[in-house]
Amino acid sequence: MSVVVVGSVALDTVETPFGKVDDAIGGSATYFSAAASYFTHVNLVAVVGEDFPIDEIQFLQSRGVNLDGLVVKPGKTFRWGGKYEFDLNQRETLFTHLNVFENFDPELPEHYRNSSYLFLANIHPELQLKVLDQMSQPKLVVMDTMNFWIERTPAALAEVLKRIDILIVNDSEVRQLAHTPNLFVAAKRIQTMGPKVIVIKKGEHGALMVHDSQYFWAPAFPLEQLRDPTGAGDTFAGGFVGYLAKVDDTSSVHLRKAVLYGSTLASFCVEHFSIEGLKNLSPQQIERRYQQFVTMVTCD
Amino acid sequence: MSVVVVGSVALDTVETPFGKVDDAIGGSATYFSAAASYFTHVNLVAVVGEDFPIDEIQFLQSRGVNLDGLVVKPGKTFRWGGKYEFDLNQRETLFTHLNVFENFDPELPEHYRNSSYLFLANIHPELQLKVLDQMSQPKLVVMDTMNFWIERTPAALAEVLKRIDILIVNDSEVRQLAHTPNLFVAAKRIQTMGPKVIVIKKGEHGALMVHDSQYFWAPAFPLEQLRDPTGAGDTFAGGFVGYLAKVDDTSSVHLRKAVLYGSTLASFCVEHFSIEGLKNLSPQQIERRYQQFVTMVTCD
Repeated sequence: MSVVVVGSVALDTVETPFGKVDDAIGGSATYFSAAASYFTHVNLVAVVGEDFPIDEIQFLQSRGVNLDGLVVKPGKTFRWGGKYEFDLNQRETLFTHLNVFENFDPELPEHYRNSSYLFLANIHPELQLKVLDQMSQPKLVVMDTMNFWIERTPAALAEVLKRIDILIVNDSEVRQLAHTPNLFVAAKRIQTMGPKVIVIKKGEHGALMVHDSQYFWAPAFPLEQLRDPTGAGDTFAGGFVGYLAKVDDTSSVHLRKAVLYGSTLASFCVEHFSIEGLKNLSPQQIERRYQQFVTMVTCD
Repeated sequence: MSVVVVGSVALDTVETPFGKVDDAIGGSATYFSAAASYFTHVNLVAVVGEDFPIDEIQFLQSRGVNLDGLVVKPGKTFRWGGKYEFDLNQRETLFTHLNVFENFDPELPEHYRNSSYLFLANIHPELQLKVLDQMSQPKLVVMDTMNFWIERTPAALAEVLKRIDILIVNDSEVRQLAHTPNLFVAAKRIQTMGPKVIVIKKGEHGALMVHDSQYFWAPAFPLEQLRDPTGAGDTFAGGFVGYLAKVDDTSSVHLRKAVLYGSTLASFCVEHFSIEGLKNLSPQQIERRYQQFVTMVTCD
């Protein structure tokens, strides 16, 4: 089954203790697509400026990512600059230049609208609603959001939450959205707002999924060198949604496997700057690391 | 197989957002013994003052804990006071009155010295060495330590590390001991100092064990109400060592199961203040929760 992703394609300037890149390919839709492309066909919706080096994402097309929904507008591409200190869990945003992304108004190409799987990356909830209105009848809708929208646009966010199946956010966002510090209580509270499945990304501590009344814990990969955490969350989402779309089955077992595939792809992402770690993975590499995730939690 | 534990028996005054207890039973050896007693016979070594309400730990004897090594000295019992704020991962020590514990000089009763399993709770490394010298030939030595000894007595600590098999500490202590922020690199570095197995307690994020070149991740139990985290680490150690002593097998499979049993006992501990949660568990309760731990990480 194919997946539609609506999000950003951006140019990132990132500094970590292990190096620095300027205007490197980034953006939620880019990371998501690169990861999901290892599992299924992806239809991307995003906007870039005339300065965007389209050539650098041509490899996505060769991996089955449809770029018909990538609009080039007059002006500059969305740029983000950030710096990670020694503790790679903490980052400082140095600048955010929305540029053409400021007036992003996602318009889904006709041939995208029948896709069964939809990922709403972290954009304004009003835009997420507009996207939902354009889809025929997706089988599964997964979304991300952030503290900015939780604080600024709670009403619109509440509307989106009612219409989605799975929320993927980080632990602090879960606590903030549910107004409680206990993750388990928070997840249950969010289940009453709409999504029946909450996937909580916890960085170096792995991920936790609450589905119905079940809990599933996934480890993080024991990386001795983690170079750049940028895009890890969207890459996780790409592996997660991509796997579900591939098997076209959202039963518990597959939701759990999807979390491990998401974690697997995210672990490859953070080993390199930008999207480098997601460019040339083999199915064998992915399967081997997936099995390592399984082994890390197995007792017998 | 029986286990010897050398540590503290104390009176704790603890405040959390869920309540407060004054002079409640506490201490590393107490928590450890209570947890380990569900698996095997325990020989406790500690010191208390004349004011200690011995009656309140008589239940340990009925659970097979030998208190012959509990010495009553003139003076007052070790008292600790602490407060946990809303975030139960952070605690503030309000007071530490060592009292008779200040001159603790562990003397193992003769009939303890042939025990095959030894747990050195968090005490001065010089005392840990003295205990090691008194044991005939333990099959497995497990130890805990803390930032205080890592900073103040590194040479003595290094000597103890050379003589132990398993180190159980929390994540910040691992980083501090190995002088590196990456947990995996840190654990490998500590393996070169002596212990081949490093068990890292991560509070609400579960536990991570590094054994040889393998990693094992254990979840934390999804408790909606965690009342008092005091003693969770020693309780974990009690379940961990107690299980290993019971099966008398330290192969990988059993080390992994031991981590889950440690996590299981710790989850019961933190549901109540002091040692209340460890007093009357049934084997069925323990087994049921252990299975829930397994289910939380299982994909099929």
